Amino acid sequence: MPEKMLHELTATEIVSRITAGKTTAEAVARDCLDYIAQREPAVQAWQFLDLELVLQQARALDRGTTRGPLQGVPVGIKDIIDTADMPTEYGTPIHAGHRPHMDAACVALTRRAGGLIMGKTVTTEFANRHPGKTMHPMDPARTPGGSSSGSAAAVGDRMIPLAVGTQTTGSTIRPAAYNGCFGYRPTWGDLRLAGVMEAAGSLDTLGLIARSVDDIALYRNVLAGVPTQALSVEPCKPPRVGVCRTQFWNDTDAATKTAIESCAAAMAKAGAKVTDLTLLASFEPIEEIHQRISSFEFARNRAWEINHHYERISKTLRENRLKHGLAYSFEQYCEARAQGEKLRLQLDDIFRDYDVILTPSAPGEPPVGLNATGSAAFSSIWTVGHNPSMTLPLFSGPNKLPIGVQLITRRDTDRYLFEVSRWTCALYGR
Amino acid sequence: MPEKMLHELTATEIVSRITAGKTTAEAVARDCLDYIAQREPAVQAWQFLDLELVLQQARALDRGTTRGPLQGVPVGIKDIIDTADMPTEYGTPIHAGHRPHMDAACVALTRRAGGLIMGKTVTTEFANRHPGKTMHPMDPARTPGGSSSGSAAAVGDRMIPLAVGTQTTGSTIRPAAYNGCFGYRPTWGDLRLAGVMEAAGSLDTLGLIARSVDDIALYRNVLAGVPTQALSVEPCKPPRVGVCRTQFWNDTDAATKTAIESCAAAMAKAGAKVTDLTLLASFEPIEEIHQRISSFEFARNRAWEINHHYERISKTLRENRLKHGLAYSFEQYCEARAQGEKLRLQLDDIFRDYDVILTPSAPGEPPVGLNATGSAAFSSIWTVGHNPSMTLPLFSGPNKLPIGVQLITRRDTDRYLFEVSRWTCALYGR
Repeated sequence: MPEKMLHELTATEIVSRITAGKTTAEAVARDCLDYIAQREPAVQAWQFLDLELVLQQARALDRGTTRGPLQGVPVGIKDIIDTADMPTEYGTPIHAGHRPHMDAACVALTRRAGGLIMGKTVTTEFANRHPGKTMHPMDPARTPGGSSSGSAAAVGDRMIPLAVGTQTTGSTIRPAAYNGCFGYRPTWGDLRLAGVMEAAGSLDTLGLIARSVDDIALYRNVLAGVPTQALSVEPCKPPRVGVCRTQFWNDTDAATKTAIESCAAAMAKAGAKVTDLTLLASFEPIEEIHQRISSFEFARNRAWEINHHYERISKTLRENRLKHGLAYSFEQYCEARAQGEKLRLQLDDIFRDYDVILTPSAPGEPPVGLNATGSAAFSSIWTVGHNPSMTLPLFSGPNKLPIGVQLITRRDTDRYLFEVSRWTCALYGR
Repeated sequence: MPEKMLHELTATEIVSRITAGKTTAEAVARDCLDYIAQREPAVQAWQFLDLELVLQQARALDRGTTRGPLQGVPVGIKDIIDTADMPTEYGTPIHAGHRPHMDAACVALTRRAGGLIMGKTVTTEFANRHPGKTMHPMDPARTPGGSSSGSAAAVGDRMIPLAVGTQTTGSTIRPAAYNGCFGYRPTWGDLRLAGVMEAAGSLDTLGLIARSVDDIALYRNVLAGVPTQALSVEPCKPPRVGVCRTQFWNDTDAATKTAIESCAAAMAKAGAKVTDLTLLASFEPIEEIHQRISSFEFARNRAWEINHHYERISKTLRENRLKHGLAYSFEQYCEARAQGEKLRLQLDDIFRDYDVILTPSAPGEPPVGLNATGSAAFSSIWTVGHNPSMTLPLFSGPNKLPIGVQLITRRDTDRYLFEVSRWTCALYGR
C-alpha cells in the first residue's frame, strides 16, 4: 500500500506526526492546499480560502513552543460561524463581505488547541434549504447534502481531515453520510454556540465531520473546552441495539434497507442483543413538531434581514420556512415545544432498554439535482430529542456512492456513542 | 394632580397619545432627552446615546404612514445586545468602539413595531458581576443592581419607559427591584437571542423592565414576534399562592420580610388561598448547580477574549467565574445540568398545587457600595427552573428605597403571570 499523502491523513495521525517532528503544520497545509487547488473547481466546497493566511497560521504554529491536541490540523469552518480573520457570510448575498470582529467560541477553542483554520466552508442560505454552490465530489450532478455542504464535501474529498458544521434538523448527519464521512451531532447544549448564527436555538447544535471516530472524540473534547482523553482501548461490550425503522422507512431505497438489516445482523453476530424498536404513536407528528419549533424560531431570528433585505432572501426560504414560521401562533409554538420535551423524556425511557438505536442516516445515496439537499427525515426525531447521534460510512449504494448508518444514544452519553461507533466500525474492519 | 411630563408616561400611554395624534415621537424623544441631559451626570445609565440619531429615528417614525404597537416608544437596549447603528461594547474595554453590522433579533423586532432605540444602557462587564459606571438614581452611594444596571436605572428614573435587559442569574429581577420598576424574566426559550452576547445559553433570557404590567405584556408580544393582545379586562380570580421563603430567608432584612408577609396577607384578604411552600431538599444545592452551569458555559463562551485579551478581563471575573468555570470537569457540568432539569420538573409538579409563588426579589434595599451589584440568590431557583418571574415595585424600606416582591408561575404561563401581577398590584391601588 503506498504511503498516504498528508492531506489524506486523519487529524489524529497529523497531530502524532507533527508532535513527533516527522512533519510540520506547513507541510500538511501545503499538501492540503495543493490538493484543494486541483479539486476545488469540481467540488466548490469553499466560501473563503486564502492561501497566504493559511500558510501564515501554519508557520506560526510551527514556530510556537507549545504543541496542542489539534496541533497543525487543518479545520474547515462552516460559514455561519464567526471568524475574526475571514469573512462570514451566512450563505446569503445579504451578508456578502461581512467580517466579524471576533472568533466564535468554537473557533477560538480550535485555535487554542493548535488547530489551523483552513477557511470557510459553503453553507446553504442561513443554514436552511436553499443550496450553495457545492457539488458532490464523486458526482457533480448530485447534491453533497446540506446545510453543512462544504464541510462534508471537503472532508469526504480529503481536502481536510476535520470540519465543523451545525445541525438544526439533519444538517450534519445527512451531508456527512452523503460524503462518506463520520458525522456527529452532540447532545444538545454540550458545545457552546457563541458566535454561531442562531437558526433555531431550541434545536441548534454544532456538528463535527471527520474520517475517524477518534478524530471526532478528540475534537469534541477540544470544543467542550476540557482536557483531551483518548477513547478506551478495550472495545465496549456488545450493546443492546434497537433497530428503529421509523415511519420514514418506506421512503428509503433498497440499498439503505439492506445496509440497516446487514448492520443489525453483523451486530447480532458479534454478540449484541438486537431487537426491533417501534416508537410510540406520540412520535408520529415529529415532522410537524420539528417544523413548528424550527420555523417559528428561525423566522424571528431573521428579523433584521426581513426588515431590511426581504427581497434578497431566496424564494425557497421565503415561501417555506419563513412563511410557515410567521404564520404559527405563539400557542402552536409552545405546544410543539412542550411535545418535544415530552418526546425527550420518552426517549430517556427507551434508553433504559436499549444502549443504542440503529437507523438510516438518510433515505439513500445522495440524490441527483443541485436545487435541493436531500431529506433530513431520519434526523428529526433525535434532533428534537436532543440526543447525540453519529453516522458511520460503512456502506455504498448501486451507484457506488456512500450510504451511512446512524447510531443514537441517550442524552449525555456522547463518549459511549463514540465507543459503540468504534465497536460497530470494527465489525467492518474500520 | 399636574399632568405628567412625556418622559414620565408609560409605553402604553405614549402609543395611545401618538396614535391619537395628541403628541409625536419627536416630542416624546425630546422630552426624554431633556430629562436625561439633566439626570445623566448623577445616574450614568447610558453607555451610548446620540441625540441626533434619536431625533432622526423619531422624525422618521412621525413621517411614516404606519403606526406600530410600540409607536414612538423610546426603548433602552442593554449593551450586550447588537445594534447596527450604535456601538455594542459588552461592558468591557476589550470591545470598545465595536459596531455590529446588524441588529439583534429583539432590536429589529422593536424597530418593526415602531419602537425608537434610544441608546445603549450600561451593563456590567460581560453581563457578569464587575460593575459599570451606573449609580442608583435615588442615592449615588448605592448600586443600581446588575447586570442590567443602566436599563433598570433609566426606567426607574423615568428617563425612558421601557428597556431590555438580560438575565442569567438575577440580572433583570434584582436591578428592576432596586430601581422600583416592574422587571420580567420570560419562560426560558420564549424570546430569541440572536445577536445577544451568550453568557450561559442554558440559562440566558432577555429581561424586560418597565413601569407597568401592561407595558411588559405589550413589549413581550412584540419581542415574541406575535400580534399584540391586551390583557383581559376582567381581573383574574384569586390565585393559590405559595409563600416560598427559601433557604435565603435569613439573609433578608426586616423590611423585605415585612413586605412578603404583608403582601401574603393582602392576597389572602382578597380571597387567595395562601399557604407556606417549603421546597424539597433537592433545591438546597441550587447555588452550586447554578454556579456550575453558568460558569462552565461562560468560560467557554469567552474563549476568544481569553485567547487574546486575558489581562484586560477584570480581576473579579478572572478570579471568580472564569476560574471556577475552567476548573469544573465536563462531568461536573453535566451532572449540574441534569440536576437542573430535575428541579425544573419538580417545579412543574409544585405548580399543580399552586398558581403562583411569592418570594423576595432581593434581600433588601439596594446596598451601599458601587463595587458590587447585590445578591441574586432569590432568582437562582427560578432561573434554573426556566420559570417566568416578575418583580412588583410595591414596597419600600427604611431608607425610602424600593423593595420588590417577586411572583413566579409555571413555565409557559407568562400571560397568566401578567394577570396575577396585575391582580396583586390592584390590591395596592397600582
